[in-house]
Amino acid sequence: MFNQIVKAVPNLFTLGNLLCGVLSITLNMSGFIELASIFIFLSAFFDFLDGRVARRLKVNSELGVQLDSLADIVSFGVAPALLFHSIAPNSILTSLAFILFPLMGALRLARFNVKPTIGYFKGLPIPAAGLPLAGMGFFSYSNAWVTLILALLMVSPIRVKKL
Amino acid sequence: MFNQIVKAVPNLFTLGNLLCGVLSITLNMSGFIELASIFIFLSAFFDFLDGRVARRLKVNSELGVQLDSLADIVSFGVAPALLFHSIAPNSILTSLAFILFPLMGALRLARFNVKPTIGYFKGLPIPAAGLPLAGMGFFSYSNAWVTLILALLMVSPIRVKKL
Repeated sequence: MFNQIVKAVPNLFTLGNLLCGVLSITLNMSGFIELASIFIFLSAFFDFLDGRVARRLKVNSELGVQLDSLADIVSFGVAPALLFHSIAPNSILTSLAFILFPLMGALRLARFNVKPTIGYFKGLPIPAAGLPLAGMGFFSYSNAWVTLILALLMVSPIRVKKL
Repeated sequence: MFNQIVKAVPNLFTLGNLLCGVLSITLNMSGFIELASIFIFLSAFFDFLDGRVARRLKVNSELGVQLDSLADIVSFGVAPALLFHSIAPNSILTSLAFILFPLMGALRLARFNVKPTIGYFKGLPIPAAGLPLAGMGFFSYSNAWVTLILALLMVSPIRVKKL
């Protein structure tokens, strides 16, 4: 029983990550752009904690890995793209960047789950793409080229050292 | 080269599912509730096709399975919950149902990926929970109890026969 509870702790952090992502979208819908951005950073805080807590408690699990990706696509793929969409002026380039960002994020997450790399990441990790968008959103600043490049970096073969 | 292209076809359908989910949220944000609902049904159409196309072309892949879940959490977890949120009157029960729906959906998807069941599903599949919400949304109808029950059915031990 106690073991079961300890095992669930990191997954609660991951659900916190997902919840903050969903709340960011809701805040964005209500016009609270700065708050929507802050909730993406809150997601990142939970995302940072869940892996650390799992390792510290020695309860890493396959369920945790799966749940983590599902939270990440919402919090660092869809929510930042919607923030960008709310701020950016309408144009074909904006629409392209907005559409590609979550799609490339999903490809990046799916690829990593199929072929995990050890010690480094192949392609920019999705939080490292979503957080700059959220940060720009906080200052009501948008840049379609930066968004597009972040999207493409996620599926690029560049190597990023794991923190 | 040709093989690579054929292999990518079902994943393009899955990305179509994700794209329709993201567009449903955008339409909802702009106040087009009926259209937002229709795009969730479009997601279901792509979701129905991707597995069938993969089996027909004999290109089932682990990448496809992962990508499918990432699309499903957005299209049948987050998008229907946001539709419900846009329609339902504010109350504690509404907030609870709105929050639990995507969280239970993510748990359901993560569990299935870790322990796939053959011939039946354990717990209501996420499209079977998201589509009734989308259907209700089309008629601008919301019911917090139904939403809550659908959320809980996803993580319940009930067995649902695979179509």
